Amino acid sequence: MVLPSADAPLGVFDSGLGGLTVVRELRTSVPHESIIYLGDTARVPYGTRSASTVIRYARSCAKVLTERGVKALVIACNTVSAVAVDVLRAELDMPVIGVVGPGADAAVSAARAEADRTGGPPPKIGVLGTQGTISSGAYNRHVQQISSRFEVIGQPAPLLVPLVEEGWLEGPVPELAVRKYVEGLLDVGAGVFVLGCTHYPLLRPTIEKVLFELMGRPAPVVDSAAATAAFVAELLLDGRIQANASRGLGKLQLLVTDQPAGFQKAADLFLGQHTPEVEQIDLSVE
Amino acid sequence: MVLPSADAPLGVFDSGLGGLTVVRELRTSVPHESIIYLGDTARVPYGTRSASTVIRYARSCAKVLTERGVKALVIACNTVSAVAVDVLRAELDMPVIGVVGPGADAAVSAARAEADRTGGPPPKIGVLGTQGTISSGAYNRHVQQISSRFEVIGQPAPLLVPLVEEGWLEGPVPELAVRKYVEGLLDVGAGVFVLGCTHYPLLRPTIEKVLFELMGRPAPVVDSAAATAAFVAELLLDGRIQANASRGLGKLQLLVTDQPAGFQKAADLFLGQHTPEVEQIDLSVE
Repeated sequence: MVLPSADAPLGVFDSGLGGLTVVRELRTSVPHESIIYLGDTARVPYGTRSASTVIRYARSCAKVLTERGVKALVIACNTVSAVAVDVLRAELDMPVIGVVGPGADAAVSAARAEADRTGGPPPKIGVLGTQGTISSGAYNRHVQQISSRFEVIGQPAPLLVPLVEEGWLEGPVPELAVRKYVEGLLDVGAGVFVLGCTHYPLLRPTIEKVLFELMGRPAPVVDSAAATAAFVAELLLDGRIQANASRGLGKLQLLVTDQPAGFQKAADLFLGQHTPEVEQIDLSVE
Repeated sequence: MVLPSADAPLGVFDSGLGGLTVVRELRTSVPHESIIYLGDTARVPYGTRSASTVIRYARSCAKVLTERGVKALVIACNTVSAVAVDVLRAELDMPVIGVVGPGADAAVSAARAEADRTGGPPPKIGVLGTQGTISSGAYNRHVQQISSRFEVIGQPAPLLVPLVEEGWLEGPVPELAVRKYVEGLLDVGAGVFVLGCTHYPLLRPTIEKVLFELMGRPAPVVDSAAATAAFVAELLLDGRIQANASRGLGKLQLLVTDQPAGFQKAADLFLGQHTPEVEQIDLSVE
């Protein structure tokens, strides 16, 4: 691997808006890094597509970012991370970080902590995600690589992304939708919960509220976006490729493949700050 | 225009599953017609995409069907009909039927009937649809071509497609979602309601229930899918290109661009019958 330049930006991509929750966390964990974000809004959502289609889309997103000289690639989408991270790692000459690995690590830590607290066996790890992420079994594979002591149960939650994109984050409709999905996990013994889609952090207060109502106590909730940002900070430090802090805060550049105006309007909610200008690029020939 | 062969199939396309509600109505209105249906599941949903992207996708769908020798093209998607029907009509040498025109005609008839019933002015026409359909203003344009006496109000309803695809058709969550969208239309004086997306007929009982609760009487609800099937029957008859009834019932062939197994599983609900085998085709180079 060629040693990447510390001054180069991080490349982050997602099928659309959701990955901005990872950017939001990165702005806190590695504030001096510049970031180029690509949202493939012309082909969103990836969550319902086949693995081969997602891999094809992921390759074209990665190509755009590597051509812009990024030093590392963050796949800020659970669906892509679940099916394409190994392919991109094999093909690219730079660090490739998905959200599933750090999310699974954090879930195992939370399950261990629960076991320590109760003195019993670790609770099952319940993962909420898109159909694509859950069908891939990626969280289970990662967790089994750590230890076979832990059990993962996946629950597709297809209504949560549209609820977030509609900005419908609290009240009876999101609560009933979350309850429907979470009850399935509780029925089979889940005691640690993973937000296995980068849209879900915006529903975290509602998810925690529903879990509290159903369990009678606060439940451990793991956010794959936050876990990934923490992991990226470590990786840049360990690899000695972190940006020079003396140059000030990093820049944020946003690219989309369709609907830049709609993206910009919705992005504030995900990013937790005012969204800079959004540039549209064309991936149609990829 | 070259006179098309009466024995040729009808071509029907949509971004995914929704157009099957049009096929379902066509199987009743023109049972002797063979149908080739294309669901562009690799690029679904179209409803959130820009007009130029939708036109590009529509061209590639139309190309597949015309190459298979269809005698007429039915655009079984409100979003595509809203932005691409004129383009395809100009480019193709066969009848091209969208769902917006027949839907708008039926809405005007319903508004006229309401005016006759009450003796007052016609009520406003409220259209529920995707963001793309509503942003296009296509229903309003069609209605204004008939008469400026009628007023159209559009309401984007982005949660209804995911609810239908999740099979969550009744109970508090779909009722609250429908109520949220319908209340906006009632507030501005709508009295006739158009199901401006081919997914929505499956929510019709819930939509009618909510309207009854809010209005205290049954409300006129117009289904663009049913209106289109009736229009196609007239067009084939008038053009003398209807299939020969002596050959028995027409065949149904289903093509998709991704996830044939998932499509087949979900299609029964939309089609109202057992779904035949689904063939996957590749549009990636289009």
